Amino acid sequence: MRPPLTRDLHDLLERGRDRQLRLAVTGLSRSGKTAFLTSLVNQLRHAGLEARLDLLPASREGRLLGARRVQQQDLGVPRFPYDQAMAALDDQPPRWPDPTRGISELRLAIRYRPTRSGLLGGETRQLTLDLFDYPGEWLLDLPLLDHDYLSWSQTQRHDGGSERAALFADWQAMVKDLDPAEEVDEARLAEIAERYATGLRAAREAGFADLQPGRFLLPGELEGAPVLQFFPLPGIAEADRDALAALPAESLYATLARRFRHYQQHIVRPFYREHFRRFDRQIVLVDVLGALNAGPERFEDLSRALSRLMQSFQYGKRSLLTRLFAPRIDRLAIAATKADHVTPEQHGRLVALLEALLADPLKDLRFADVPVRALSLAAIRATESREVNQQGRRSPALRGTTLAGESLLLFPGEVPDRLPRADFWSRQGFAFTAFRPLPRDTGAPLPHIRMDAALDWLIGDKLS
Amino acid sequence: MRPPLTRDLHDLLERGRDRQLRLAVTGLSRSGKTAFLTSLVNQLRHAGLEARLDLLPASREGRLLGARRVQQQDLGVPRFPYDQAMAALDDQPPRWPDPTRGISELRLAIRYRPTRSGLLGGETRQLTLDLFDYPGEWLLDLPLLDHDYLSWSQTQRHDGGSERAALFADWQAMVKDLDPAEEVDEARLAEIAERYATGLRAAREAGFADLQPGRFLLPGELEGAPVLQFFPLPGIAEADRDALAALPAESLYATLARRFRHYQQHIVRPFYREHFRRFDRQIVLVDVLGALNAGPERFEDLSRALSRLMQSFQYGKRSLLTRLFAPRIDRLAIAATKADHVTPEQHGRLVALLEALLADPLKDLRFADVPVRALSLAAIRATESREVNQQGRRSPALRGTTLAGESLLLFPGEVPDRLPRADFWSRQGFAFTAFRPLPRDTGAPLPHIRMDAALDWLIGDKLS
Repeated sequence: MRPPLTRDLHDLLERGRDRQLRLAVTGLSRSGKTAFLTSLVNQLRHAGLEARLDLLPASREGRLLGARRVQQQDLGVPRFPYDQAMAALDDQPPRWPDPTRGISELRLAIRYRPTRSGLLGGETRQLTLDLFDYPGEWLLDLPLLDHDYLSWSQTQRHDGGSERAALFADWQAMVKDLDPAEEVDEARLAEIAERYATGLRAAREAGFADLQPGRFLLPGELEGAPVLQFFPLPGIAEADRDALAALPAESLYATLARRFRHYQQHIVRPFYREHFRRFDRQIVLVDVLGALNAGPERFEDLSRALSRLMQSFQYGKRSLLTRLFAPRIDRLAIAATKADHVTPEQHGRLVALLEALLADPLKDLRFADVPVRALSLAAIRATESREVNQQGRRSPALRGTTLAGESLLLFPGEVPDRLPRADFWSRQGFAFTAFRPLPRDTGAPLPHIRMDAALDWLIGDKLS
Repeated sequence: MRPPLTRDLHDLLERGRDRQLRLAVTGLSRSGKTAFLTSLVNQLRHAGLEARLDLLPASREGRLLGARRVQQQDLGVPRFPYDQAMAALDDQPPRWPDPTRGISELRLAIRYRPTRSGLLGGETRQLTLDLFDYPGEWLLDLPLLDHDYLSWSQTQRHDGGSERAALFADWQAMVKDLDPAEEVDEARLAEIAERYATGLRAAREAGFADLQPGRFLLPGELEGAPVLQFFPLPGIAEADRDALAALPAESLYATLARRFRHYQQHIVRPFYREHFRRFDRQIVLVDVLGALNAGPERFEDLSRALSRLMQSFQYGKRSLLTRLFAPRIDRLAIAATKADHVTPEQHGRLVALLEALLADPLKDLRFADVPVRALSLAAIRATESREVNQQGRRSPALRGTTLAGESLLLFPGEVPDRLPRADFWSRQGFAFTAFRPLPRDTGAPLPHIRMDAALDWLIGDKLS
């Protein structure tokens, strides 16, 4: 044990230091980002009083005093709409908050008592927690940086007989007879690009996730700009590289390649430079149950999308990224959301399935020495767990209210604890029902499952 | 006369030079920017064939061969939606195109024969014309750069008994008891700022123009960002400057001042740096008739807004701006639009009224040696001019179809040729009726009034 003076000096230094953490929440659309961030802020605001956060030591030990929203640093980033989200949840009947688009930010000042108080006892400390919420679709764009237009075109195939390819059939018909060497017709190119974007949007609506370029889905102020008007050219091959490179600037190929480069440099890179590389920790939310419900093609698509998305975190391995962005993420969480939509004894299997889904990325992360934890959670509970008597046996069940207002008692099925095989899909083993949030007393904290475990992994060490 | 060889050498050099012109179209919302730009492109595309452009010498002399849309330079700026605008005008019945928001761009390659052809006669040349369309509201923000938060607050008064002030009454009630020294409450501040933005939007809807900050009206991706959450503080005075400057960073005053500075640096400056200072020529569109129709308070408001807006062009005088933006605008046009909504013999009076409205800015521009011309035009004609027999006298009249589809023959009234005095308003001398565009044969050029005069002033010298 260090002598008291030294310890106090150490504490003084700690207090003087800028105790600040930048935590980002991401996930593909409908993975539950808004619910997660709303619940996170809500739990921390209620910490020290009503919130049930037993898996977070600082809370269990009564050292967490609460949290307050304070002014964020970057005035040009939209504020996360916490009040609007709470208003939706407090409605009669409760509604899910509107999803956020683009990036948003919220800063919390968290007060806590350190495990070892100084000489004077009742000392408190403050952790400034910057929370960010951004679309996982933006992360899906990172692998674009490893390509040039030619090699990217080859990775983006939309043919074959799949359900997904069918959504691109219109575009495929327009693009298949294009000659890379022809002089570009601006209006025609814009039209084909719009058809491609329509395919991407239709695919997202249909539950597919592995979609590039991600910004085509959320164009914002770039709507109508040429940088969002390109598409892969089917049928060009590596063997054509020199011939393609020699085409004049007005050719279709050169035009598409120029726009692809502009997209890389002015859309993908700035996000990493200005945001991504400045996050200390991140949590990636995954709607595993939704994909399980949607069938084999979408489930495999999610798996591919997650592999792509997780590449962004493998710095040890990816020297290009390390050089470009000098990132410093020191902790990562991956969470299967909506765990309240399966019975509690399935939660372990849900985590096992998530880990199976991410087996390769997790290996890479371990190799890259990035501390990562997989968990399952429900940011805002929508069901209560029950037991029912079925043919004399007690079986687990869920009670909830559907979005249409119907009260249901059901057993949604078993979650496979490994990647499902053909027989799982043919048995049609899992039925996901969307429930509305549970009603609760005004001002009561949001009911949750394992938000405290997530909080412990993401910020617990900073509260000791 | 120069000897032939020298002349041909000169022509060769001319041809070698990058013949390029950047022309911007601006105006407050509803001034007719989209119609103007659509018509401009349409006339140039039809030049050499059906377009009637007698006031443009290159066209009258048969030297203008036509224009083609080509790829724009800045891939990150939305393309001006010419095709969509034409589709609306070609509809049955014809519709006005949707207004553009934010900046958009379109590049034309114009082919023409120079007045003096070289030795070989049939020589043609090309002028690359970059067209830009941006909201005049952005120009209204320029004067913000001359202020700090304290002095800006003093210029923005929303009290008194005017109709306009009434639209800010809610905000005024919330803000009047605020103490600049109080610790800022983020959520409350966001609420008051939203009320302020609501006031600005209501004022614009009601036809007022002199509104700051302009970006509050078109927030785009900055919706919800703190940089768009500030407002003037009534009741602070120059005498308080030192006391206010000494307030802590968390005070209401310091927070508002910080956001104001961020707005200046990250919203206003970049527009000038990246766009405004790179325009060679500009045309400012003014809906004088609409304001005349709306009554004295809005007319005076328009006059104030125009004075503010025109400041941006007075480089000679404004050394601060000259230093900041090194602009190079060499020609300016100011046009009263919708001239087809008054009978032809009133057009001269309309220009005279525009000049009276802009008397002070025009003096300043002349002093700053910026070549400027005031004109009246109708980018897309919506009426035909007629004569009616009234009590034995032939009187001018207009025939058109209202937006509701009713065919009308009317005399809208006399336009005053100077700033209207009280008795004009009490006589209620002018009734503006909105008409739908005239129907026309498919593929025919858009009918217009004096678009050719505008074109001559804006690009005519480049086609000689």
